[in-house]
Amino acid sequence: MTAHPIAANDGGSPDRREEVLAAAAECFMRRGYEATSMDDVADMLGATKGRVYHHFRSKPELFFEVFRRAISILAREAGVHETGPGTAAARLRRMARAHVLCMMETQTFQRNLTLGVDLYRFGETSAEHRATLEELMDLRRAYEDAFRRTFAAGKADGSLAAPDPSLAMRTLLGAINWVAVWYSPRHGETRAHRETLADGIVDQVLQGYLA
Amino acid sequence: MTAHPIAANDGGSPDRREEVLAAAAECFMRRGYEATSMDDVADMLGATKGRVYHHFRSKPELFFEVFRRAISILAREAGVHETGPGTAAARLRRMARAHVLCMMETQTFQRNLTLGVDLYRFGETSAEHRATLEELMDLRRAYEDAFRRTFAAGKADGSLAAPDPSLAMRTLLGAINWVAVWYSPRHGETRAHRETLADGIVDQVLQGYLA
Repeated sequence: MTAHPIAANDGGSPDRREEVLAAAAECFMRRGYEATSMDDVADMLGATKGRVYHHFRSKPELFFEVFRRAISILAREAGVHETGPGTAAARLRRMARAHVLCMMETQTFQRNLTLGVDLYRFGETSAEHRATLEELMDLRRAYEDAFRRTFAAGKADGSLAAPDPSLAMRTLLGAINWVAVWYSPRHGETRAHRETLADGIVDQVLQGYLA
Repeated sequence: MTAHPIAANDGGSPDRREEVLAAAAECFMRRGYEATSMDDVADMLGATKGRVYHHFRSKPELFFEVFRRAISILAREAGVHETGPGTAAARLRRMARAHVLCMMETQTFQRNLTLGVDLYRFGETSAEHRATLEELMDLRRAYEDAFRRTFAAGKADGSLAAPDPSLAMRTLLGAINWVAVWYSPRHGETRAHRETLADGIVDQVLQGYLA
């Protein structure tokens, strides 16, 4: 996980693909899905449109990959703690802390999740793209469900006190998702600064769910 | 406050202006600021572009008015409770509850607040528009400050237990702002249903801040 996904790189093709993906995430976040063109992504990279098309056939395909990446980062960094040691409260804390760090360190990707939900709800898409969007919404739901299950587990093991696990999942995720809206890295900020901020956020937020 | 701001209306000019504003809020929410054109707003209204221009000179002006309206609704419905009776915790509860109801009932307008922050951070605007955006960010900050002050007041009167009022303001607002992202009205839903849902959300969220 890196704070600056657009790294200088003149190496092989997989890294080039990553650069295109990171530039696209930045463009979509700044201008929205509809207004972003493949030209914008190329401009952000300082490259030709051909380079973008070399890796992704179309704008929807590029956007879907950004969305998929955002969710897979969350699943790998945060969702994975669902099955860790300790009480449900301890696991929830590790999940929430890692989620907050993802919001900070892969902010451009994470902001694309809301855009994807809006595209799903309001966008006019082909049947093929609609099917992909359905699949992406399922991935997002599966990730969020880890939080819902952990709230339910915490009711069972007595470590969490949320009467409604679904509502708790929504309010907790709202508080921590919002970090991607307000967070802006400070000059000279380190990982340690972000961890301290994440601890403060999680301490405050979890307070309302502990038994 | 109305759940369906695009009301059928063939009356005088003030109502016509309201309809244009509501249609614009809907367009910006669906497609983003950049991708929305005055034509889109006219199409959403089923009217000519001339009718849109009759009330608003330009797209930025129309967007700024949507943003201003979103904040003034929040200030009028929720911010006003800052000076009500009871403890800071009681006032915070009334503010948060009204805020959640605004997220539900004027969702299209409220979603434009995040778009405005993005436009402020990332948009390329003229000096004149930049000055207006600064003013709008100040309005938003002034509204959020009511929450910060109430957390500080709650520390003083012993009714709230948030160690850091600024962080508490951000995490609480995140949890309740997120309602505008996930909420979708159910068929046949009434004001009473929304109030019950708002009470559940606020009960859960405030739990973490009470002394």
